[in-house]
Amino acid sequence: MANRVTIAIDAMGGENSPNKIFDAIKISLKKNKNNYFHLFGKENLLKDTIQKNKEISDYCKIINCEDVIGDEESPFTAAKKGKNTSMWKSIESQKNGGADISLSAGNTGALLIVSRLILNCIDGINKPALAGLWPNKKNMSIVLDLGANIEYDEKTLVNFSSMGSALFKSLFEKKIPKVALLNIGLEEHKGNDILKRTSTILKNKDLKNFEFCGYVEGNQITRGEIDVIVTDGFTGNIALKTAEGTANFITENFKNSLNLFSKLISFYSLKKFKEKLDPRKYNGAIFLGLQGPVVKSHGSTDAKGFAHSIELCHKIVRSNLIQKIKTHLISIDP
Amino acid sequence: MANRVTIAIDAMGGENSPNKIFDAIKISLKKNKNNYFHLFGKENLLKDTIQKNKEISDYCKIINCEDVIGDEESPFTAAKKGKNTSMWKSIESQKNGGADISLSAGNTGALLIVSRLILNCIDGINKPALAGLWPNKKNMSIVLDLGANIEYDEKTLVNFSSMGSALFKSLFEKKIPKVALLNIGLEEHKGNDILKRTSTILKNKDLKNFEFCGYVEGNQITRGEIDVIVTDGFTGNIALKTAEGTANFITENFKNSLNLFSKLISFYSLKKFKEKLDPRKYNGAIFLGLQGPVVKSHGSTDAKGFAHSIELCHKIVRSNLIQKIKTHLISIDP
Repeated sequence: MANRVTIAIDAMGGENSPNKIFDAIKISLKKNKNNYFHLFGKENLLKDTIQKNKEISDYCKIINCEDVIGDEESPFTAAKKGKNTSMWKSIESQKNGGADISLSAGNTGALLIVSRLILNCIDGINKPALAGLWPNKKNMSIVLDLGANIEYDEKTLVNFSSMGSALFKSLFEKKIPKVALLNIGLEEHKGNDILKRTSTILKNKDLKNFEFCGYVEGNQITRGEIDVIVTDGFTGNIALKTAEGTANFITENFKNSLNLFSKLISFYSLKKFKEKLDPRKYNGAIFLGLQGPVVKSHGSTDAKGFAHSIELCHKIVRSNLIQKIKTHLISIDP
Repeated sequence: MANRVTIAIDAMGGENSPNKIFDAIKISLKKNKNNYFHLFGKENLLKDTIQKNKEISDYCKIINCEDVIGDEESPFTAAKKGKNTSMWKSIESQKNGGADISLSAGNTGALLIVSRLILNCIDGINKPALAGLWPNKKNMSIVLDLGANIEYDEKTLVNFSSMGSALFKSLFEKKIPKVALLNIGLEEHKGNDILKRTSTILKNKDLKNFEFCGYVEGNQITRGEIDVIVTDGFTGNIALKTAEGTANFITENFKNSLNLFSKLISFYSLKKFKEKLDPRKYNGAIFLGLQGPVVKSHGSTDAKGFAHSIELCHKIVRSNLIQKIKTHLISIDP
């Protein structure tokens, strides 16, 4: 099938795996039968489960892996353990042409390092980035880097701008996405020298694939005026986790303030609210800058959340993201 | 009156000033008659207003200032304009012993620079910080720096830890506040070298005034397990504004999901929710590290919010914050 996307899944990664992965495949096949899954993990375990889920067996191939990278392992221990693990083998299969994309709900640090060891960087990219979907008033933005690297320079941020815009274009229908740098103010003198140099470079380039809109502040991320918000991995990770913490805090406070009667009366409203902001709907961070695409699902998400990551994988491959990134790249040498 | 606190107020700063300032003084005097206010601004304007508010005139003295620093002026233009402005004169009066503390709802960047020009740093402090109150599940935390400086080193973060804990002790009843560094993970290898060096210094010191608890992540700020969260001014500003944006986004989404009937039924619950998280209740950022205390009110807050800043000023002076900061200071030289 020409349109079929082959997704290599580390079937051992994340909470309740591999069960949730089979359930996610079932959910995803109801919507889209154009995916084929290579499942990497302990053969006995996977075979047992697939026998209970016969309806998906035509869409899955099992590849035995003796070892698993644990959630608690440091990225370096994980990388050393390497070659016989489900994570390693799933990404390696992509390099050998066996799969179009890899997906894992396992250890993030390990996934970053293993992906980088196996798949080389795209020519011209000095640092890969972890990009995530961020809900906003209109729909979704992309924010990157969410924590792949804490060291960066203006070349890194220029690359992030082009990679982020390529990803946005791959996932949403917009020809010229709006890109901005996350900063502590909108004026030109604000922020550190790397931000200022990045801004100068992007302002002076004849950009064809995205529009550079200068700086945005943290409170503007959710307004939906900017499609791609670019920052370094330290700041991006702090912003993401602070937003998650704040969202939980506000939601809990709100729930606690409702009495039982209000809760009953507002049942459908609350359901609507919960559905709209359901984090499973934007589950899946994308590792950008390597020769192949890798998607990281949240470890604690359920089958519905993992199914969203499968959908994301499909879109990324079908839109030819890697090629788009190459086209978007900006040379910053004089 | 021995217990009286004299607060120098830049009466021209912020939206709806000076009217909101007079209203705030009225609110505050109902609770606490132990404050005296020096109001800096255009005499004619202030006299007119005070004549309409006779009940507060015994608690206020007007000091004429010809000039005002605008909200749109850059900190450097503002500093140059200097000596005849209400902001400059109010802080200067503190240096001359005329007031115990200064309060302004004006231009933050200008306030930082003017305060620093007039009031010197406390011996041993290399960078001042802007500290803010952050609501959490239990009560309030203090987070600093929210944007006074973007350049920092381990000495800066060690100082922030001692200043933040002194502030926490001044505002809340806790002998040994818990202090942690904001980072992108809890493990020792996480973060940049400055964070690692700061952590090593604080772990190896025999701390008497606070407990060092290592690292916290952004999603832990609102959990209330840590009293003082220390970070650099760039990261702190991004975290604060991202949290504000997220809080607004969630609250609006929630309101939009309720239909009219649910809104009516949940009226009191919603009121309770709104009251609990009312940002006016933690209005006022504290500029720490100078020989005198300076409080910055949000420019757009109303009289109730400004009255909270007055209360904060009173607590800071009565608890002898500057002396506490000096006692908490940690030498990091060998």
